[in-house]
Amino acid sequence: MIYLDNAATTKPNNRALSAAIAYAAEYFYNPSTRYAGGFEVSAAIERAREYLLSSVAGEKYALTFTSGGTESDNLAILSAARRGNAVTTMGEHAAVERCFSELKQRGVEPRFAPLLPDGRVDGAALLALMDEKTSLVSVCHVGSETGAVNDIAAISKAVKQKNPRCVFMSDGVQAFGKLPFRLPDTVDLYTVSAHKIGGLKGTGALFRKKSLALGAQIFGGGQEGGLRSGTENVLGILAFYEAAKDVFPTLETDAARVKSLREQLISALDGEFYTRLSAESGTPYVLTVAARGMRGEVLMRMLWDRGVVVGTGSACSSKHPRSRALAACGIGEDLLDGVLRLSFSRETTDEEVLIAAREMNGCAREFSQATAR
Amino acid sequence: MIYLDNAATTKPNNRALSAAIAYAAEYFYNPSTRYAGGFEVSAAIERAREYLLSSVAGEKYALTFTSGGTESDNLAILSAARRGNAVTTMGEHAAVERCFSELKQRGVEPRFAPLLPDGRVDGAALLALMDEKTSLVSVCHVGSETGAVNDIAAISKAVKQKNPRCVFMSDGVQAFGKLPFRLPDTVDLYTVSAHKIGGLKGTGALFRKKSLALGAQIFGGGQEGGLRSGTENVLGILAFYEAAKDVFPTLETDAARVKSLREQLISALDGEFYTRLSAESGTPYVLTVAARGMRGEVLMRMLWDRGVVVGTGSACSSKHPRSRALAACGIGEDLLDGVLRLSFSRETTDEEVLIAAREMNGCAREFSQATAR
Repeated sequence: MIYLDNAATTKPNNRALSAAIAYAAEYFYNPSTRYAGGFEVSAAIERAREYLLSSVAGEKYALTFTSGGTESDNLAILSAARRGNAVTTMGEHAAVERCFSELKQRGVEPRFAPLLPDGRVDGAALLALMDEKTSLVSVCHVGSETGAVNDIAAISKAVKQKNPRCVFMSDGVQAFGKLPFRLPDTVDLYTVSAHKIGGLKGTGALFRKKSLALGAQIFGGGQEGGLRSGTENVLGILAFYEAAKDVFPTLETDAARVKSLREQLISALDGEFYTRLSAESGTPYVLTVAARGMRGEVLMRMLWDRGVVVGTGSACSSKHPRSRALAACGIGEDLLDGVLRLSFSRETTDEEVLIAAREMNGCAREFSQATAR
Repeated sequence: MIYLDNAATTKPNNRALSAAIAYAAEYFYNPSTRYAGGFEVSAAIERAREYLLSSVAGEKYALTFTSGGTESDNLAILSAARRGNAVTTMGEHAAVERCFSELKQRGVEPRFAPLLPDGRVDGAALLALMDEKTSLVSVCHVGSETGAVNDIAAISKAVKQKNPRCVFMSDGVQAFGKLPFRLPDTVDLYTVSAHKIGGLKGTGALFRKKSLALGAQIFGGGQEGGLRSGTENVLGILAFYEAAKDVFPTLETDAARVKSLREQLISALDGEFYTRLSAESGTPYVLTVAARGMRGEVLMRMLWDRGVVVGTGSACSSKHPRSRALAACGIGEDLLDGVLRLSFSRETTDEEVLIAAREMNGCAREFSQATAR
């Protein structure tokens, strides 16, 4: 099986999972207990926290473990946007988009900045939507459907120049552990997920500038410094830590290699059928294409039957087959139904992408012959 | 090692965990994807949901998976109590208690019913706190510190008689998978946790009467019928399911056997040192005692060194060493500092409780000799 839907979720990293399970089976204590076993589990969580913090952030940041990227986005947005208006982009994951819809119910006006044709946010338009009442600006680091990489260092700097009191947040789920990157001082909140880098579903984290006070969204025993109550998902946190330890040391070489895979794949696709949608400047880990006049979902299932697993867009909003983000980039109606998202991991090989391209060409040919008859 | 802190967390059930891991390693797909692999994972989640539902509830109930008991409590309380006042007890877990504190910030008046000396809620006092503006009543099924079992069938019936529009919820974390029980029609919401019955930390669920509309607390891709967005914690859900499959078939015989263990343990404790706090009518799985004039935390650590693991109260609020619930039962100051909570699992043996009693007696003797000198 050739798995090219790594932006939806990755196969768990076996070494990381085994290490986490071995630990959690022996040290199964509740980390809130006040005996040696509990202290040890609590210390293990702190080791994971310190490593993840150091991987992209400096001393000024704290990290809160959550149940995933979606909860991290919720905690960040619903805490930080408390008045006036909040600005985001048309290229966000459903977790961010729906939080902004919820803000409206809470008396904060949501504003959505348009995208450029390459999927990045239109920075000038984003800044123009801001005013002195803007409490939050949220711009994803990598668009999950387009693969576009926003220059959040530059955007956050411009946002702070325009309104220094405005909180800047970025959904980093598709960037963390994939793009070489360190959090610049102007990014206050950054959300990440474990299962996109070989960890487990059900674990995520929120990076937060220590100087920024947030309110809890889940109340209880006061875990995670009071910001996120509930017994910690120890296995998930440790698997996240172990998976991160495997990706960070070779982040740059992996990204370069995956970029060459992406280019090999697009080169091998038959231009008669497939149009590239994601920009070359986007993340190496995502290649979005469209098969003109075809239905992506049908192609996806044909490919599944041939042992090639691809996606049609963000798995997390797969009940809405047409991509809002791609429409916002100006992709025409003739292409929107034919979208396929191919997404790679550090384990994807040259051979796999070439076979995938061959099968994709074969399926497209079969599809077009079937519909032509 | 003799582990008697199962109310804080249980050792993961090896069979359940292995089965869940074997599945999740092969079927690692995102359950929201629309190809066969994703459909299969989605179907596995539905199998887990159906089994858990059928274990304590009938056709009128739905089940929402969450990140744990705390999130379940939050989802239930913060959704259901939207106006007027809400009534709970002095014997609740921190998750319920803190949600009620949060309600105050949201304009809903929290009211706390007193406890009887045996740890159960004073039902008459609870009803007296209700009025036509009461939107929610929340009474734990089993008190996590006292082990007291509230007759939630009778209480919920009386609550509905007094105010039929009032939502009745119960925190079932210490009861689910331990007490023989089926949800009566008058209980609208019931919260449970996986890691108290051999599952993993980071997974819980909320049972909900289908007729009751709740609002989401976490927004995003619309998973869990829109009530709880975020990629599902597949491994945690499957481990919960597998663990439940092991506890439910022998629930009654296990409870009877554990009750006899509890009575053996209390009989073997030296009455010169230890006073029983939890009532005989309480859950078989919890025995709370106090060592008069001693510090429970010191005894707990002495016992750890001798290979016996006990708790001092609810692990989830262990930063507050004195038990609010026990104080509400009228336990005197001379006992409150000396509280130990011994909690059992279906795997606890006769031999273990007798050794534990011997070590507890030895530690108390040592403690009292050391302080007498």
